[in-house]
Amino acid sequence: MERIKTAIVGASGYTGQELLRLLLVHPQVELVAATSRQEAGKPLSAVFPRFRKLPGAELPFIEPDPDAIAATGAQAAFLALPHGVAAEIATALLERGLKVIDLSADFRLSDAAIYEEFYGHAHPAPALLDEAVYGLPEVREDAIKAARLIASPGCYPTSIILPLVPLLKAGLIDPETIVANSLSGVSGAGRKADISLLFVECNESVRAYGIPKHRHLSEIEQELSLAAGEKVTITFIPHLIPVNAGIATTITAKLRGGVDAAKVGEALEAAYSEAPFVRLLGKGGCADTKNVTRTNFIDIGWHHDSRTGRVILTSAEDNLGKGAGSQAVQSFNIIFGLPQTAGLQTA
Amino acid sequence: MERIKTAIVGASGYTGQELLRLLLVHPQVELVAATSRQEAGKPLSAVFPRFRKLPGAELPFIEPDPDAIAATGAQAAFLALPHGVAAEIATALLERGLKVIDLSADFRLSDAAIYEEFYGHAHPAPALLDEAVYGLPEVREDAIKAARLIASPGCYPTSIILPLVPLLKAGLIDPETIVANSLSGVSGAGRKADISLLFVECNESVRAYGIPKHRHLSEIEQELSLAAGEKVTITFIPHLIPVNAGIATTITAKLRGGVDAAKVGEALEAAYSEAPFVRLLGKGGCADTKNVTRTNFIDIGWHHDSRTGRVILTSAEDNLGKGAGSQAVQSFNIIFGLPQTAGLQTA
Amino acid sequence: MERIKTAIVGASGYTGQELLRLLLVHPQVELVAATSRQEAGKPLSAVFPRFRKLPGAELPFIEPDPDAIAATGAQAAFLALPHGVAAEIATALLERGLKVIDLSADFRLSDAAIYEEFYGHAHPAPALLDEAVYGLPEVREDAIKAARLIASPGCYPTSIILPLVPLLKAGLIDPETIVANSLSGVSGAGRKADISLLFVECNESVRAYGIPKHRHLSEIEQELSLAAGEKVTITFIPHLIPVNAGIATTITAKLRGGVDAAKVGEALEAAYSEAPFVRLLGKGGCADTKNVTRTNFIDIGWHHDSRTGRVILTSAEDNLGKGAGSQAVQSFNIIFGLPQTAGLQTA
Amino acid sequence: MERIKTAIVGASGYTGQELLRLLLVHPQVELVAATSRQEAGKPLSAVFPRFRKLPGAELPFIEPDPDAIAATGAQAAFLALPHGVAAEIATALLERGLKVIDLSADFRLSDAAIYEEFYGHAHPAPALLDEAVYGLPEVREDAIKAARLIASPGCYPTSIILPLVPLLKAGLIDPETIVANSLSGVSGAGRKADISLLFVECNESVRAYGIPKHRHLSEIEQELSLAAGEKVTITFIPHLIPVNAGIATTITAKLRGGVDAAKVGEALEAAYSEAPFVRLLGKGGCADTKNVTRTNFIDIGWHHDSRTGRVILTSAEDNLGKGAGSQAVQSFNIIFGLPQTAGLQTA
Repeated sequence: MERIKTAIVGASGYTGQELLRLLLVHPQVELVAATSRQEAGKPLSAVFPRFRKLPGAELPFIEPDPDAIAATGAQAAFLALPHGVAAEIATALLERGLKVIDLSADFRLSDAAIYEEFYGHAHPAPALLDEAVYGLPEVREDAIKAARLIASPGCYPTSIILPLVPLLKAGLIDPETIVANSLSGVSGAGRKADISLLFVECNESVRAYGIPKHRHLSEIEQELSLAAGEKVTITFIPHLIPVNAGIATTITAKLRGGVDAAKVGEALEAAYSEAPFVRLLGKGGCADTKNVTRTNFIDIGWHHDSRTGRVILTSAEDNLGKGAGSQAVQSFNIIFGLPQTAGLQTA
Repeated sequence: MERIKTAIVGASGYTGQELLRLLLVHPQVELVAATSRQEAGKPLSAVFPRFRKLPGAELPFIEPDPDAIAATGAQAAFLALPHGVAAEIATALLERGLKVIDLSADFRLSDAAIYEEFYGHAHPAPALLDEAVYGLPEVREDAIKAARLIASPGCYPTSIILPLVPLLKAGLIDPETIVANSLSGVSGAGRKADISLLFVECNESVRAYGIPKHRHLSEIEQELSLAAGEKVTITFIPHLIPVNAGIATTITAKLRGGVDAAKVGEALEAAYSEAPFVRLLGKGGCADTKNVTRTNFIDIGWHHDSRTGRVILTSAEDNLGKGAGSQAVQSFNIIFGLPQTAGLQTA
Repeated sequence: MERIKTAIVGASGYTGQELLRLLLVHPQVELVAATSRQEAGKPLSAVFPRFRKLPGAELPFIEPDPDAIAATGAQAAFLALPHGVAAEIATALLERGLKVIDLSADFRLSDAAIYEEFYGHAHPAPALLDEAVYGLPEVREDAIKAARLIASPGCYPTSIILPLVPLLKAGLIDPETIVANSLSGVSGAGRKADISLLFVECNESVRAYGIPKHRHLSEIEQELSLAAGEKVTITFIPHLIPVNAGIATTITAKLRGGVDAAKVGEALEAAYSEAPFVRLLGKGGCADTKNVTRTNFIDIGWHHDSRTGRVILTSAEDNLGKGAGSQAVQSFNIIFGLPQTAGLQTA
Repeated sequence: MERIKTAIVGASGYTGQELLRLLLVHPQVELVAATSRQEAGKPLSAVFPRFRKLPGAELPFIEPDPDAIAATGAQAAFLALPHGVAAEIATALLERGLKVIDLSADFRLSDAAIYEEFYGHAHPAPALLDEAVYGLPEVREDAIKAARLIASPGCYPTSIILPLVPLLKAGLIDPETIVANSLSGVSGAGRKADISLLFVECNESVRAYGIPKHRHLSEIEQELSLAAGEKVTITFIPHLIPVNAGIATTITAKLRGGVDAAKVGEALEAAYSEAPFVRLLGKGGCADTKNVTRTNFIDIGWHHDSRTGRVILTSAEDNLGKGAGSQAVQSFNIIFGLPQTAGLQTA
């Protein structure tokens, strides 16, 4: 089978680097373009010495010009760009016939008004919102198969939505009681020169931030509402912890009156036992980020707190993996008819 | 003023080491005894090279024998022993006229039945429970002044009780909705040879554990119930994060109907503005462990999540400091009529 | 092509875990046995949750019994066992017709007397020493091709030998002036319950250890002497640093009188420009462990200190990768006629 | 005794923060001024929340204006400024009658030509070079007593000079064979927004840098030459390791012909047994940074590598402590006739 010609637009941040890491060795992919304004002209290996002597690592970064990207013959492009910027280039690449997998927030919300509320500016390409598919393969594989434009989910949202969707669909928990605490590695904050992200500032430090209305709440609540069939509003508290990568999320919610706690395990099993990248730890299992870093897995465990009537869900994923890069590749695999696990079956 | 002769019983673990660190240089203390079964005979400096060339560091560890401790003229003893073991030696030292500040769980619960429920064995000295004072200086300074036996609080409980007590006393929040997520440094797990505590197992890892019924819940709920004037049952989820020391706690609870969120800030101010070791970060402040490690401070911030009607409290303390060793010294200072800050005013 | 049936003997330590990580997804390998005395009966995935849902992860650990291993049809076995123990099972597996790649120190030294000097006991299988091949593919690929028994090199030795061999062969440096300082991640100390390896003891700590006569000196000096054509004795100082994995080595040596420093770069280029897993950073390049972790690469840079007449070499590798597991797989690939990069081309 | 009015000029970097930490609680110091161009007007506690509720923490930062500083009545000023900038303000403060303890490199070298060679610009105040005293209390306490201007040593130099001076003075080692490898925590690189200092870039990474001619070589060689009575040129290799603070240095040198290795221990004992902040670990001791962080101690151990005739010295200090802030306070104590340990006796 011929390799699929693929581009990465915005490949010099942490998400771009993760996409490079995955696509340089993906057996069905030929990386034909990687863009970076500030690194244009340099080979990938000069910017990321980790990739030296891998096939393809001498490809030079180019400017993010849609025509230049299309001229490489690319059939698909991953966008790892800031929100606002991504929409514009997505539009241009779709016009040139590429499939677009956008890892920014630009196409994740179906409602342009909510986008404006949470991101502080008008939506840059509202005409595309109807078409964009929120790229959670475990929730809407069929829509992904048929999509031209994937809005790949955020890191926090993935870790919160996947554990909750089966419970909300089955009506097991009271949506008004949902509280999600997430602990994220520092790569989630991006590769930018900022005093607060220095080693000395983050090491031996833990702190909550971005409360009470983190931007990711918008897509979290959109997806939870779809699952629940009613509007869901939750409390979400992200924290920064001194690890490079990984998100651990702990969710609490009250079981609905009369619900047998065992139904929680059954709902999770029914939803995910066949999913190649969701690993259920069962009742009493606690997810640990060290088991998922640099993979596309998300681990989910649960407990019943019978003293308070709450269910406690824990999930762990790599914020750059299932929370960003590898999940986008999973959607790519689905779009191009590859096994979901192509290029992602590593430990 | 003459220095107060003081002993540390069980000085070879992390809490004992923190007590040594504080008491070796406390200006009103003369450390006269430090016990350790396994290190008896060795000078402190041989076991903890960090203390070499400090005054007192050549004191040899002795066996934890009550008569030998009393023979040193010690007026007070700090116990940093496992629960179950502490009660026995506490009894013996009280009989010999020492003030006892116990950092184990043995005297924290006023109800021996709850002790048995959470610790799995009968209480070893139930006759002392009435007399023991739960040593939270910000909550019961007067009782501490008069006490012979202090039950110094646990690390998680301190980080949860202090933020909540003023809110519960004022009736601002619904006790049934309280959820506390705590993130603790690895020293909280003790200095024991255990594969799960190895550097390689903990570094680049985050995980919840001990849910849904961690032992510390018993003292947390006791104190919250006292403050609320009704039985309080909460959900508590501890997590292990890769830092040496520090606990960050995030608490959510629904405001009671009709309560103005500003009352939260007022209640905290009224309770703690004069407290030398509680630092209020105000509305919108997020507590960060890096500001409190190796101090006796606890930082507390809060947010109002108006979308859900919840208040979000964040606190940060050093689990070995305000969560253990230095809080015990704070009680000691109160008992002996010293300023609360004696020996504790460091950054 | 049929997959090569392969066993891992001693698969529950960090090296064993790394071999599992590599071989479970190696495209030309079928893992047919993994042994562990303490975990026998449990599936790999229960001991290492990281491997759940990978193909082969439900294989149960078995006891390290040579007949049982041979009965699986294994054609090759990797031994990740303590020295002394490895020799015995290597002998038994060779008798049963398996190729053996031993990652212990048992077959690394050609002289049983030096083994006894450094390891403190008589060599357990001296008859095999002649046949064993020291498995550094960049130095003796041909011997590896023909070998039944590979002694895969130690982590520190690999990081020291590879940079020095070309310089010694070319007579560029004075062997009497060689000093090697190595900084190793904590996984190099093994997965054992030991207070000194706890997170709290290692984090925020750096220390030299094992001087002046670390066991690895024996194989380092054996290989350097072979390259130099004379007996070489060096000073080697290992350090423990708070990272999970990675070794950074810095070597200094005086250039021989009249040697043009540029010859250093030429010798390295001549030796390694075609080597798939050696990456030369050139003059002025400093190797960084973050570029090699979880790969089989070793990066090598060099400087000329013209003020003192010394050359400074820096190398970086993953102590569990090129320093242990993946280097063993590289030898395996050579023995079985696979490309050296089979199963190892990842970033 | 009245407290000594003291200023810190340039108090918003890591060294300034360490000086604040020490001087805010120094029993003989009254902090009367702290300067920072970018933070002027804000109280110390707003920039460094760690200091809240300490006495003096509400002092506002002021602009670094010599007249304003002098107007506070300050008798002494610590300068934690970049080289080049420090000299100018030092001159102005000396003219206004203050004692100056400069932590920059500006007055460390007695030869302005060497300053220009290593720092790349002409010396900004060569007239003061004769008067400035290189502030190593263990080497020149008497000169410090009488000084108006202290050039407080660099972090790497302290860790290298103190172990070597007694050996060079006694003629025990061959100066031409000295190689020093130092491993430094990230705070040594300063508090500046730089991608290479981000948590994600430094964590799980180790790398050498700044070879072969790091700026600190100039003062190291100046002091070693003074001790040896001849010009000494060494090889020095700094490394960055993922800890917040601490420098571990390993030095190798050949013993001179006929020198009994025991003389090494004797020379160290003779020099430092009475020094309050040098702790000798003896033969076979390896210094560990975890024992010295946040103190003014330097630990020194040594080994004899009889196989090669080398002595191996290991030292550990806090780069911000004995390597910067607390060592400057030690000089301050000497100048003002206080015990060397005043305000520094902590663990």
